[in-house]
Amino acid sequence: MQYHLVDELKRICGEKNVYDSPEDKIAYSYDGTPLYYKEPLAIVFPQDADQISRIMKFANESEFAVVPRGAGTGLSGGSVPVDNSIVMVMTKWNKILEIDQSNLTAWVEPGVITGNFQREVEKIGLFYPPDPGSLNVCTIGGNVAENAGGLRGLKYGVTKNYVMGYEMVLPTGDVLKFGGKNYKDVAGYNLRDIAIGSEGTLGIFTKILLRLIPLPQRSITMKAHFNSLLDSGRSVAEIIASHIVPSMIEFLDNTTINCIEDYTKIGLPRNAAAMLILEVDGRGDIVDFEANKILEILKTNNGQGIQHTSNADEANILKTARRSAFSALARRAPTVILEDATVPRSELPVMIEKVQEAARKFDLMIGNFGHAGDGNLHPTCLIDERNQSELDRAMKAFDFIFEEAIKLGGTITGEHGTGLAKKQFFEKSAEIPALDLMRKIKSSVDPNNVLNPGKIFSRSPKCESYKF
Amino acid sequence: MQYHLVDELKRICGEKNVYDSPEDKIAYSYDGTPLYYKEPLAIVFPQDADQISRIMKFANESEFAVVPRGAGTGLSGGSVPVDNSIVMVMTKWNKILEIDQSNLTAWVEPGVITGNFQREVEKIGLFYPPDPGSLNVCTIGGNVAENAGGLRGLKYGVTKNYVMGYEMVLPTGDVLKFGGKNYKDVAGYNLRDIAIGSEGTLGIFTKILLRLIPLPQRSITMKAHFNSLLDSGRSVAEIIASHIVPSMIEFLDNTTINCIEDYTKIGLPRNAAAMLILEVDGRGDIVDFEANKILEILKTNNGQGIQHTSNADEANILKTARRSAFSALARRAPTVILEDATVPRSELPVMIEKVQEAARKFDLMIGNFGHAGDGNLHPTCLIDERNQSELDRAMKAFDFIFEEAIKLGGTITGEHGTGLAKKQFFEKSAEIPALDLMRKIKSSVDPNNVLNPGKIFSRSPKCESYKF
Repeated sequence: MQYHLVDELKRICGEKNVYDSPEDKIAYSYDGTPLYYKEPLAIVFPQDADQISRIMKFANESEFAVVPRGAGTGLSGGSVPVDNSIVMVMTKWNKILEIDQSNLTAWVEPGVITGNFQREVEKIGLFYPPDPGSLNVCTIGGNVAENAGGLRGLKYGVTKNYVMGYEMVLPTGDVLKFGGKNYKDVAGYNLRDIAIGSEGTLGIFTKILLRLIPLPQRSITMKAHFNSLLDSGRSVAEIIASHIVPSMIEFLDNTTINCIEDYTKIGLPRNAAAMLILEVDGRGDIVDFEANKILEILKTNNGQGIQHTSNADEANILKTARRSAFSALARRAPTVILEDATVPRSELPVMIEKVQEAARKFDLMIGNFGHAGDGNLHPTCLIDERNQSELDRAMKAFDFIFEEAIKLGGTITGEHGTGLAKKQFFEKSAEIPALDLMRKIKSSVDPNNVLNPGKIFSRSPKCESYKF
Repeated sequence: MQYHLVDELKRICGEKNVYDSPEDKIAYSYDGTPLYYKEPLAIVFPQDADQISRIMKFANESEFAVVPRGAGTGLSGGSVPVDNSIVMVMTKWNKILEIDQSNLTAWVEPGVITGNFQREVEKIGLFYPPDPGSLNVCTIGGNVAENAGGLRGLKYGVTKNYVMGYEMVLPTGDVLKFGGKNYKDVAGYNLRDIAIGSEGTLGIFTKILLRLIPLPQRSITMKAHFNSLLDSGRSVAEIIASHIVPSMIEFLDNTTINCIEDYTKIGLPRNAAAMLILEVDGRGDIVDFEANKILEILKTNNGQGIQHTSNADEANILKTARRSAFSALARRAPTVILEDATVPRSELPVMIEKVQEAARKFDLMIGNFGHAGDGNLHPTCLIDERNQSELDRAMKAFDFIFEEAIKLGGTITGEHGTGLAKKQFFEKSAEIPALDLMRKIKSSVDPNNVLNPGKIFSRSPKCESYKF
C-alpha cells in the first residue's frame, strides 16, 4: 500500500514534491507541541488546488489520512501526523497575490509568513494586527486554521476578525470559495467562520482574503514592576475601568522574570512579583493622554522602575523581556509545556493564584506570563518528559489549572487550539450536545474522516480510531 | 389538532400567554416585509427557557412548526408564519440582566430594544455600536438572529462582532450555552457564530452576552450634495484612500432626496444627483484632523452646501434626511420593497448605475440610499402590489440587481437576511456544496424541521414542504 501511495502521490504532484526518506519522515513527525510525535507515510508539497483536490479524492479511495501543515509552530499538536497519514506541507505557497487599497483587503497564499505580510502592508500605511508569538516563522494558513491570537487581542481582536474569505479544498476534494470583499454579507448560514479555528479538520486553505486597517501612526510603550501581584492586578483593572483600551498589556510573573534575566541579562528586577509591559497606539494627542493616565495608575498602585517611550527602538528594548519569555523558559528544561488557559479578564488575579497553587501542589516549576488585557495566560511547565513521575504531575497540574479556569467561566484554550494536546480536556469539559453537533459537522464535511482525523475530538465517543 | 394544540400551549405557558383569536392571528401574520403574509395557528408568549424547551419538544411530537419573533421589523420575512405554525413572541423578555464594567460585557434578554440598551450603557460611558435603522423598535434577539448591520458598520462592524455568547433553546428542546466572557476562546469548533444570522432557524435565544466598548467622546457630522454621482463616488474613494475610517458615510440618490424633501420640507436640494452624510468619531484632536481632511476632499470634488457640526442637536438635523429615508419613500406607494444588495466598496459607483439602469429598464420608481462606506445599498422599489404587472416588473428588476451585485463580487443581502423574500435568489446564487452543507447543519440541529422551516433555503432541493 505504501509503495503504491508514494507512487500515486508522485504522479499527482511530480517526483520532486513527494518525500519519503526516513530522515524526512522524522523531520515531519512533530510540530511545536511537546510529547506528540508520529512518523507520516510520506510528505507531499502540492503545487496547486487541483493537486490538493486529487490527493483528497485519492485519500478517500485509499483510506489514508491527510494532515495539513504550515510552519509547524502550533502548540496543540494540530499538525502532528496521525496513524496511516501523509503530511501536506503548504509553506511554499508563499505569495501575496493582491493588496487592494480601495477595499483595504489582501489575497494571500496560505504559506505567507505572518510577519512578512505585516511588514509588506505597513510599507503602504496599512496594518494587519494579529501577532502570534511565532509571527516571524508561522504562516497565515496556520494562523487561520488555529484562529491565532497574540499580544494585540484586547484592542484589535484575533485572526478571525481579519479573515474576510478564503478558497478551500474540502476533504472530499471539492474546491469552494467562502466570503468575499463585502463588509456586510448575511446570505445563508455563516459557513466561513466555522473553518476558522477548525485546526485543519474541515478543509485546506488555498487562498485567504484578509481585512486590513489603517496603520496607527504612533505608539507609546510602558513598563513597570510590582512587589505584589495584587498591585499589578489592580493596575490592569483600573486601566480598563478608565475606558482605555491599550494595544498591549503583558504580564510576567517572578519565575518568568528570573528565567528571562538568566537568559538575556538585561537587568530585570529578580525580586519583583510581577511585571507589566503596556502599549497604547493610535493617532493624535489621545495617545499621550492615554499613556499619561496609565502611568498615573501604575504609580498610584506602587509600580516600580516605571519607564515609557515613544521611540521604536527603545520600545523594542522594553518589549524584549516579553518577546523572549518562551525561549527563556524553554532553555530551562528539556520539555516545556506552554498552555493558554484563559479567563474573563476580571478573574485574572484569581487565575494567577491558582497557577501558583498548582506549582506548589504538584511540586513543579511553572512560569506564568501572558496577555493580561484579554485574560489569556500562558502557564508554562518546565519538566523532563523522560521523568515519568514529573510528567504525570505536570498532567495533573494542567488538569487542575483547566478545571479552575472553567470554574471561573474561562476556557482550556484561548489561542493555541485543542489539537491532540487538549483533546481529552476538551471532551471532558464540553457540553455533550455541542460536542455531538461538532461531530455531525465534521462527518458532513468529511464523511470518510480523512482530513486531520482525531484532532480536537475523537470521531465518535464510542469508536476512537486514533489514540494518543 | 388545533384545539389540542392551543390547550397544550396554555397548559405549558398559562392561559393568558396564548392568543388564538382571529384578530390576533391577523396581527401576527406578517412582519416588516411586504408581500408575505400567513396566519399562524396560535401566538405564544413563553415565560422562561423551560417553557420554550417544552414547546419545542411538543412541536417535535405533534409536528407543528415554531416561528420565533421579536418586534417583527425584519425585512426578509424571517418572522412571517409558515404553514401549520405557531408564532413565539419574545418581546416581553426585555430585561438587561447585567452590565459588567470589569469585563465590558452585558447579559440581556432577547426582547430588549436595541436603542434602549444603547442609551442605558451610554449613561456609564460605554458603547454598543450596532445601529440598524429600526433601532428604536427592534430587539437584540432579532438583531442577533439576523446579524443586523446599520450605519456604523464600516468602522465598528455589525451585530456579530459584539456577540460574545448566548443561551439558546435548540429545536429539540435542549438548552445550551455558547461562548462566554473570554476575549479569546478556540476550544472546539466555533459553533457560537453559526447561529448568529441564522434567522431563527437553529435556536431561540433566551439570554445574550454582548461586548461593549468605551464610548467615543466626540463626533463631527458633515453633509454635502453633488451635481454628479461621479463626484460623490470619488469623494468616498479618496476618504478611504487617505486611511480615514469614518463612523458613517451615508449616500442618498436624487429620487430619495426628493421623497424626503416632500415629506420633511427641510430644504434639501431637489436637483442634486447625490448627497453624502458623514461622521467621524473618537477621542482627542484626531477627530478634528479627520473631519478637516474629509471637508477638503468634499470641496475638491465639487461638494455643494457643505455643512459640519460637532453639536449633537445640529448633527441630528443633518442626519434627519438619512434617518427618514425609509419612511419618506414608504409614503409614496402602497408597497415598498427595500432591498440591501451589497458590493465591495470599490464597486459602489458601478452598482449605483446598475440600480438606475434597472429603474429605466423595468419602468419603475426605485429610490437608492445606503451605507457607502461598506458598499451596502438600499435600492427601494415603490409599487402597488395589487398591480400584478408592476409587481412582476419589480421582481424582474431585483433579479437583475442581485445578478449584477453578484457579478461585481457582491451579495444579495448585506444586512436584512435571506428569509422568504430572497430565498429563491439565494438558492440560485449559492454554490451547491455550500447549500448542501447548510442543509446538513439544519438537519443535524433540527431533525424534524420544526423551527422556522423553509426560511433561507428549502429543506431539500427536491422536497419543498413550504412554498411561498
